[in-house]
Amino acid sequence: MPRYKITIEYDGAYYVGWQRQPRGLSVQQAIEDALTALHLHPVEIVGAGRTDSGVHACGQVAHFDVERKWSCFHLTQALNSFLRDQRIAIIKTEEVSPDFHARFSAIARRYEYHIISRRAPLVLELGRAWQVYKPLDLEAMQKGAAHFLGFHDFSAFRDSQCQSQSAEKTMEIADLQEIRGRYIFTFKARSFLHHQVRNMVGTLKLIGEGRFVPDDIPRMLESKDRKQAGPTAPPDGLYFMEVIYPT
Amino acid sequence: MPRYKITIEYDGAYYVGWQRQPRGLSVQQAIEDALTALHLHPVEIVGAGRTDSGVHACGQVAHFDVERKWSCFHLTQALNSFLRDQRIAIIKTEEVSPDFHARFSAIARRYEYHIISRRAPLVLELGRAWQVYKPLDLEAMQKGAAHFLGFHDFSAFRDSQCQSQSAEKTMEIADLQEIRGRYIFTFKARSFLHHQVRNMVGTLKLIGEGRFVPDDIPRMLESKDRKQAGPTAPPDGLYFMEVIYPT
Repeated sequence: MPRYKITIEYDGAYYVGWQRQPRGLSVQQAIEDALTALHLHPVEIVGAGRTDSGVHACGQVAHFDVERKWSCFHLTQALNSFLRDQRIAIIKTEEVSPDFHARFSAIARRYEYHIISRRAPLVLELGRAWQVYKPLDLEAMQKGAAHFLGFHDFSAFRDSQCQSQSAEKTMEIADLQEIRGRYIFTFKARSFLHHQVRNMVGTLKLIGEGRFVPDDIPRMLESKDRKQAGPTAPPDGLYFMEVIYPT
Repeated sequence: MPRYKITIEYDGAYYVGWQRQPRGLSVQQAIEDALTALHLHPVEIVGAGRTDSGVHACGQVAHFDVERKWSCFHLTQALNSFLRDQRIAIIKTEEVSPDFHARFSAIARRYEYHIISRRAPLVLELGRAWQVYKPLDLEAMQKGAAHFLGFHDFSAFRDSQCQSQSAEKTMEIADLQEIRGRYIFTFKARSFLHHQVRNMVGTLKLIGEGRFVPDDIPRMLESKDRKQAGPTAPPDGLYFMEVIYPT
């Protein structure tokens, strides 16, 4: 059976998250339902990573096997047609070798997190960013973010529900830019712990408010204690941007 | 009575347009209802320009007179509180002199129009841009846009319903940039005719597709004939960005 890799965009506000669940529609289920309708046999898909309800994706990746051989162009068109009432779009379809695995073949994942600083309620960015009411200290947050770079035990930034065997991860990018009141965080690593980006951002925002200082980050990392770090940032501002595979 | 100037953001998809109408909720009515509830007497507001249903604003401006004297901070907070179920936010409130007029005092208006080129349906940008399915010729559209600069009779780009006395306008900015498949047009002039930006963009998009050439624009302008120019671009991609007043 041919194996296909799909790259997916979705608006997380409309779903209970990536993963199929008994209650509510997940992104995975919506795509599986479309694939099953298209192939007349059950199709399961494997995603590169899970996202929580409210978290968006510009470049989630999944793979699946189907009996029928497709042109990638027509498979994309057919899937998008079945998904037309959803807030999900298939950006790209590629045929891959049977040993490709959306999750295990990935060598890196990139996330963005958007914070918007303003008093007025969000309108055009409603559900697409975390709103804060006062400007944040950009330089302090940049210094704080730099402490995440490299190899660390991220236990202090991991959700208690996290099922990952190890909390040791290597952060390749921990960047922050500000564009007209919008703070855009970029994180890249081979893999991330559950809520890791949201917990890092929740902590950096407190640094931006002056409630922590950048040099508190090494102390939090060393503590390996979730209670030492800041709160979990809301899902609205998080974007799963890209999954990187060996070329 | 003190006069206040408000700067407004809204998502045009939720309204029948700026202007109060018998059928459906307009942005003007939503704000007037909030002001009336707040002041216990009817309040009318005057906008800097009308926008059609689906057209967004980041910087629409309006003025109104009320009996009560407010701090601008508290008036903004109170209005946003009354508007909390709307897709409208008051970004800024300023007290202005009684001879300030949102429409007639304006010396320039700036619009953006966003086109996104991709095959997959829009998800995160749904209702926020005009989707085209093939890349457009950026340089040709830039050359075409440059022909709009300066003083012209824009009759060929004016809606038949337009009530403006004269179609003679001076275009101060007619710019186009491309950022990763997103074409962002910027137009600035003292004032615009009804549908002028959407008609200019609808024409430039045909230039981008090679169906017109940039040098067709002077011919269209000279014809003063709406039928010589391209179709009206959809409202979704249009943003009323800014109204400029003398300092």
